[in-house]
Amino acid sequence: MNIGRLCVIGVGLIGGSLARALRARGVVEEIVGCGRHTANLERAVELGVIDRYDTDPASAVKDADMVVVAVPLGNMATVFAAIAGHLADGAIVTDAGSAKQSVIDDAQAAFGGMPAWFVPGHPIAGTENSGVAASFAELFQGRRVILTPVDITGTDAIDRVTWMWRQAGADVVCMEPRHHDEVLAATSHLPHVLAYALVDRLARMGERDEIFEYAAGGFRDFTRIASSDPGMWRDICLCNAEALDQVLQAYREELAELHEALQQRDGERLLAVFGRAKAARDRYCDKTDNTES
Amino acid sequence: MNIGRLCVIGVGLIGGSLARALRARGVVEEIVGCGRHTANLERAVELGVIDRYDTDPASAVKDADMVVVAVPLGNMATVFAAIAGHLADGAIVTDAGSAKQSVIDDAQAAFGGMPAWFVPGHPIAGTENSGVAASFAELFQGRRVILTPVDITGTDAIDRVTWMWRQAGADVVCMEPRHHDEVLAATSHLPHVLAYALVDRLARMGERDEIFEYAAGGFRDFTRIASSDPGMWRDICLCNAEALDQVLQAYREELAELHEALQQRDGERLLAVFGRAKAARDRYCDKTDNTES
Repeated sequence: MNIGRLCVIGVGLIGGSLARALRARGVVEEIVGCGRHTANLERAVELGVIDRYDTDPASAVKDADMVVVAVPLGNMATVFAAIAGHLADGAIVTDAGSAKQSVIDDAQAAFGGMPAWFVPGHPIAGTENSGVAASFAELFQGRRVILTPVDITGTDAIDRVTWMWRQAGADVVCMEPRHHDEVLAATSHLPHVLAYALVDRLARMGERDEIFEYAAGGFRDFTRIASSDPGMWRDICLCNAEALDQVLQAYREELAELHEALQQRDGERLLAVFGRAKAARDRYCDKTDNTES
Repeated sequence: MNIGRLCVIGVGLIGGSLARALRARGVVEEIVGCGRHTANLERAVELGVIDRYDTDPASAVKDADMVVVAVPLGNMATVFAAIAGHLADGAIVTDAGSAKQSVIDDAQAAFGGMPAWFVPGHPIAGTENSGVAASFAELFQGRRVILTPVDITGTDAIDRVTWMWRQAGADVVCMEPRHHDEVLAATSHLPHVLAYALVDRLARMGERDEIFEYAAGGFRDFTRIASSDPGMWRDICLCNAEALDQVLQAYREELAELHEALQQRDGERLLAVFGRAKAARDRYCDKTDNTES
């Protein structure tokens, strides 16, 4: 089931790590990189992540049997339009976008309806760092990849993409696209917005440098995701705006309730919220620990 | 300048780690622990963190030349009242509370005015874990300790507490109590409230377990502080309610602006906020990295 020619469009943290993982497993013969920044692609060749590169998506996908589009969500439509009509017979295309309905919409528009060979996907993995230099073969080890096929998606295509991610060490599950977008809005997109908002708020306070000077490890962990790429996260917010809007609304209501409890010096209510949260997180962490062991 | 008898009231993560650090440096002859939970104190003796314990604060502080009160903020007043009149001549008392004006108010009430030998302090260190079993000698290495002396605080007392924390590896700085409370509200107390609110919100959503199942590393980091002790954090919120109220208000306004930008699909505004935040955090992290190296 090996891959003859893999084309990775967007050789960054995700695309680069997948290429490294598949090469490390010895399941791919040739890896062609594609992107807009020649310097990054040259670095990817130097690092042995890709064998060669082509900055034109149309020629990059030539004769590839697997194409992985790992570009920011805002660039998906352009890439899909550029590769439409240039794919080999039997080629399978998947993506790594953090929102799925928007990718499906883009694919439908570019390919004239949703093709059976397109498998929307999202690896739940990453760090706050970007670019091929930050990529590493173990990024997906023990992590989840969510595929969000639609009715027309081919079983063979799903199987092949599933196989690929498993080779990279990931657990693969399938989910409805809208459901994926709701779950990720809650566990990933909202936390990023909250962290960006906090750091920005503090940076806008007068005594900015002093404020950060007295920040401890908890703050550093809490705000790590605010070091993520701003353009990528603008795209994610815009592409998952509906689900994010809802969960942000719910969060703001929760925060208003907590604020009211604070203003009323209502220790019981604060304790109830904090206690429920700790119990939930400890339960979740135990689970994660079990998964990882 | 060694300590003859150190009395640690509250032998948890902070008190236990300080005791371990001072013992490791060989600058203390005897360490007496005090607390309400005998099991924890016995564990502390077993672990070699303290030499002996006494559950009665009045007798625990007998002949101690340094007393460190490391109990939750809500218990400070009770402890101060219990030790008042039982301290040795020349004994110095300091605390490790996360809010400082409330501790000063409690000390004034218990001791009949602020004593020259009481040095309010706050080590900016900790983890989400609690109890003596979580303590370790290196907790304060390279971390800040903020002392918030008032006009009447004795220079000798400040010097001695400064010396003690430096022995534990910390950097010691002085600050106005109100200013401390504002800075910590922004960098520590608010992030805890935000993390608790997020996990509680998600835990209250219908598909709770599934939500957490698809959470990635970023979520884990972001919500780590929501595993902190709920009672301790209720106390901190109540004891620093004014400063926290203000910064929570400012944060909610920032979040409302971001929400508006999202609803208007205003990518420019989102990008501006995210970009400012990333720049500020990267700058702060560089600083922290330099400090740590």
